Amino acid sequence: MDEAAQLRDFGAGTEANARITPVLLCGGAGMRLWPVSRADMPKQFAQLGSERTLFQETLLRVARETFEAPVLVTSARHRFLAAEQAGGIGAEPTVIVEPEPRNTAAAALAAAIWIARQDPDRLMLILPCDHHIPDADSFAETIAYGAMAARAGRIVTFGVTPTRPETGYGWLQPMPMPRRDGTLPLARFIEKPDAARALRMFKSDKFLWNMGVFLCSARTLVAAFTRHAPDYVAPVRAAIRRSRHDLGFLRLDEASFAGAGNESLDVAVMEKASNLSVLRFDGTWSDMGDWDAVGRVSGGAESEGTMAIDCQDTVLRADGTGIALVGIGLSNVIAVATPDAVLVADRSRAQDVRIAVAALREKGVSQADRAPRTLRPWGSYEVLTEGAGFKVKRITVLPGARLSLQSHDHRAEHWVLVAGEALVTNGGMESRLLPNQSTYIPAGQIHRLANPGSQPAILIEVQTGAYLGEDDIHRFSDDFAREAAE
Amino acid sequence: MDEAAQLRDFGAGTEANARITPVLLCGGAGMRLWPVSRADMPKQFAQLGSERTLFQETLLRVARETFEAPVLVTSARHRFLAAEQAGGIGAEPTVIVEPEPRNTAAAALAAAIWIARQDPDRLMLILPCDHHIPDADSFAETIAYGAMAARAGRIVTFGVTPTRPETGYGWLQPMPMPRRDGTLPLARFIEKPDAARALRMFKSDKFLWNMGVFLCSARTLVAAFTRHAPDYVAPVRAAIRRSRHDLGFLRLDEASFAGAGNESLDVAVMEKASNLSVLRFDGTWSDMGDWDAVGRVSGGAESEGTMAIDCQDTVLRADGTGIALVGIGLSNVIAVATPDAVLVADRSRAQDVRIAVAALREKGVSQADRAPRTLRPWGSYEVLTEGAGFKVKRITVLPGARLSLQSHDHRAEHWVLVAGEALVTNGGMESRLLPNQSTYIPAGQIHRLANPGSQPAILIEVQTGAYLGEDDIHRFSDDFAREAAE
Repeated sequence: MDEAAQLRDFGAGTEANARITPVLLCGGAGMRLWPVSRADMPKQFAQLGSERTLFQETLLRVARETFEAPVLVTSARHRFLAAEQAGGIGAEPTVIVEPEPRNTAAAALAAAIWIARQDPDRLMLILPCDHHIPDADSFAETIAYGAMAARAGRIVTFGVTPTRPETGYGWLQPMPMPRRDGTLPLARFIEKPDAARALRMFKSDKFLWNMGVFLCSARTLVAAFTRHAPDYVAPVRAAIRRSRHDLGFLRLDEASFAGAGNESLDVAVMEKASNLSVLRFDGTWSDMGDWDAVGRVSGGAESEGTMAIDCQDTVLRADGTGIALVGIGLSNVIAVATPDAVLVADRSRAQDVRIAVAALREKGVSQADRAPRTLRPWGSYEVLTEGAGFKVKRITVLPGARLSLQSHDHRAEHWVLVAGEALVTNGGMESRLLPNQSTYIPAGQIHRLANPGSQPAILIEVQTGAYLGEDDIHRFSDDFAREAAE
Repeated sequence: MDEAAQLRDFGAGTEANARITPVLLCGGAGMRLWPVSRADMPKQFAQLGSERTLFQETLLRVARETFEAPVLVTSARHRFLAAEQAGGIGAEPTVIVEPEPRNTAAAALAAAIWIARQDPDRLMLILPCDHHIPDADSFAETIAYGAMAARAGRIVTFGVTPTRPETGYGWLQPMPMPRRDGTLPLARFIEKPDAARALRMFKSDKFLWNMGVFLCSARTLVAAFTRHAPDYVAPVRAAIRRSRHDLGFLRLDEASFAGAGNESLDVAVMEKASNLSVLRFDGTWSDMGDWDAVGRVSGGAESEGTMAIDCQDTVLRADGTGIALVGIGLSNVIAVATPDAVLVADRSRAQDVRIAVAALREKGVSQADRAPRTLRPWGSYEVLTEGAGFKVKRITVLPGARLSLQSHDHRAEHWVLVAGEALVTNGGMESRLLPNQSTYIPAGQIHRLANPGSQPAILIEVQTGAYLGEDDIHRFSDDFAREAAE
C-alpha cells in the first residue's frame, strides 16, 4: 500500500476523536514587517499583498474534514480583529483571550488544558499564524501522516528541507532511523545559527528547517509541561477554571494567568522533551518573518502601485495604499510605503527593522505602533486630516453593528453618511440616515451610531472642539464590554 | 580703494536708471525633483525643507535698494502660484504670463522688450528661480560689480569656482586677461560635459561653473536677438504689443507668441554672442537641479520626520508630510516621501528621475504631474479620501478671496467650517459661517464661497453624487478670469 492510499484509509477509518483541533497562536507582533505590521495591526492580520491575511490563510489551511473547529489564542487587544477576520471567511473558532500578551508557552498550555477538559486524547495541531504555505493539501497530508505517532504519545514536529543556509530560522536535527510509526526521532533543536553553522548544516543534508508546527494530544502536552515546566501548570489551569465567557470570547483569568512564565513553547518544553518526532514537509514554506522573506515569496520588484527601473533583488511594496512607489537603480533594497510611514532598508538589514521601530517608539513617534486605520469591534476609523480645533475621520460601521451609547464633553461632531445606512440616536431622537444625509451632535449630547443595513456604512465625521482626544468619551452602554480606553 | 568701498561708492553715486531690474524666469518644471516637484507644483514653488520656496528666496535675494521691482515670466498655469508666493513675502512684481510654457529664450526676450519700452538702457538681471545662494550680500556685490560692463553694452555672465568635476552643470571658459571694466572676456560656453572632460576642466583651474545668470541692458539683449536669433523678435514684440493687462498679470498674446522659437536663451543667443564677459562669484551656489544636489546642500541624511540608521551619503526627505521615513543600512540612496508618491533611487541615478516620471505619465499615473494639494487663485484644496459616490476635500480659502459663483449638475456638497469665517451664497440666501457651523448645497443650486475674514478659512467638503469630476462646474461669475478647466 503506497503512502497516499494509507493516508486515505487512515482518514476514512477514524472516529470523531481522530479529528485534530487546530490551535492558532496569533499573539505575535511581527515588528520586522513594519510599517505594514504594527503593534495594533500585527503582520498576521495585515494585508501583505494577497487577498487574504496570513491569519486567514492559516485558518483556511485547516478548514477541511480532518480538522475540528479551530481554537485561537490571542491577546485582548486583538480579539475583535481575530474574530472579525475569522468570521470574514466563515470560520467559527473558539477564541481564548490572553489578558496580557505573553510568549507562546502559556498560550499553548491554555489551549491544551481547555481541549483536555473535553477530551484529553484529542490531538491538537499547534500552528503559527504568519507562515506562507501555498499547498494546503500537501500540508494536510503530512499532518495526517503524523497522527499515529501523536496518538502514541509523541510530540511531532515538522521540518522543511533547507534550500539555503538561512540564519533567520531554527533548525531540526532528526536521527537517521525512522520509528515504526514512520517518524524520525528528533536529536535536537538548533536555535537560529550563525552563518558558518548554517552553511555546515545546509551542506550536510542532515538538518531541516523548523516550521514551528507541533502535533500531539492535549494530554501529552500537559504532561510535558508538568514534567519540564511545572510552574506553568497551576496558574494556567486556574486561568482556565476562572475564565469567563464574554461575547463569544473565553477570557482567561488575569490574576491567575499572570503567574505563568513568559517563555516560548520551544524553550519551556520542546527543547527539553525526549518524546519528539520529526516529519518532513515537502511543500513550499516561508515564515514571512521579515521583508527579505516576503520579497523571496512575492518575487519580482514590482507589485501593485510600484515601478522598478533597473532594480536588482529589490522589494518594492505599496499594496492597497494608492501610493506610487518608484525605485531607480536599486540593488538589494527593501522599500515599503504606507500612508504615514515609509521604510527603506538594505536587504541584508531586514532583521534590524525592529531596531528602527524601537528607536521610533523611544522618540514617541506614533507610527511605531499605531496603524493609520484603527480597528474597533464595530468597524474601523482613520483620521483623514486634523488641525487646530478640528479632526476629520472616515468611519466604517459593519453591518448590524453599533457603537456605544456615548457622549463627549469637549467636542461636537458633524456626520455625513456617504455609503450604506445609519440609525442615529441624538439626544432623545432616533433618525435614519441615508447617503448624502447629515446630522450634528453637539458637545455633551448623548448619542449612538448603528448600522441597521446589510452593507458597511461609511460616514465622514468632522469633529470640532478645543480638545479632541480619544479619551473624551463617556460610555453609557456598550455591546462589546470594553474597557474605558478601548 | 578696496573693492568693497568701490562698490559702496558705485551704489551711492548712481541715478535711478542705474538700478537693475531682476527678471525671474520661473516657467521650469523641475521633474528631476519629483515627487516633491510636479508639473502643477514645480520645484521653485515647492517646499524643499526650508521656510521659503526657492522662488521666494530668489525674490528676497534681489529685494534690496540696488534693484527695481522684479519682473517674473511664468506660464499661465502657474501665474496665481507665482503671484501668491510673491505676495507672501511682500514683493510686488510685474508678472508676464506665457500662454504656453516655452523654453527660456522667448521668455527673456519678452522681458527685455517690455523693459526696453520704458527705458532701453535699463539693466536687467536674468535669474533662474531654482538656485540656492545663501549669501545674498555677496551675490548683490558681485552683480553690482558687473554693472559697468553691462552698461557698456556687454552681456555679463557669472561663474562659480568648481569644487568637483560636475557633469550636471554647464561650464564657462573665461580668457585669462581682464578687460578694463574688470570682467574677463568669455572664450566659450561648455554644455554639460562628460566625466572625462569635466575632470580635465576641474583639474585645469581655468574653468567656472555657469550660474545661468546674465546681466545686460534691455537694449543689448534685444540687439543680441536681432543679430543671432532674429526669428524671435517680431513674434515676441507682437505678443507684448497685443498683450492685455488682466488682474495684475500681463498676458502675452497667444497667437503672436506661438510664432517664437522654443530654445533656451543659451542656445538661441548666448552661445553665439561675442560681447560676453564673465565675473566670478565667490559664494556658495547650487542649482538644486536634482536630489543629489539637494542632498549636497542639505547635508546629513536625517531631516524633518526621518530617521537614518547606519546610512552613508544618503538623502532622506519627508518635509512637511508627517510621514515617518526610516532608512536602514543605506549607502548612496535618495528616498523622498510625499503623501501619494515615494521615490527611492541610487544617488548616481538622480538624473534619471525624469525618466521615471515620463514612464508614470505614460502609464496614466496621476502622481506623475498632479500634486496632492491643488492650488487655485483663491487658495487650495486637497482630496482627503474618495469612494464610490463620494469625495472628501479639505478646502482653504485665502483671506478676502472668493470662489466663482457656480453650480454642479451631478454633485451635492456638505460644508463644515473648521477655521476662520466664510460667507456662503446658497441659492438666493447669503449666510455667514463660523467654525463648527455647516451648510448643504444641493445639486444644481447656484452657490458661492467667500472668506470675508483676515485669516485663512478652512472647510471640510463632503461631495456626494454619481459623478464627481472637477469638470462638473458651471461658472456664472469669477474673480479670476479663468478658463473652464482651471
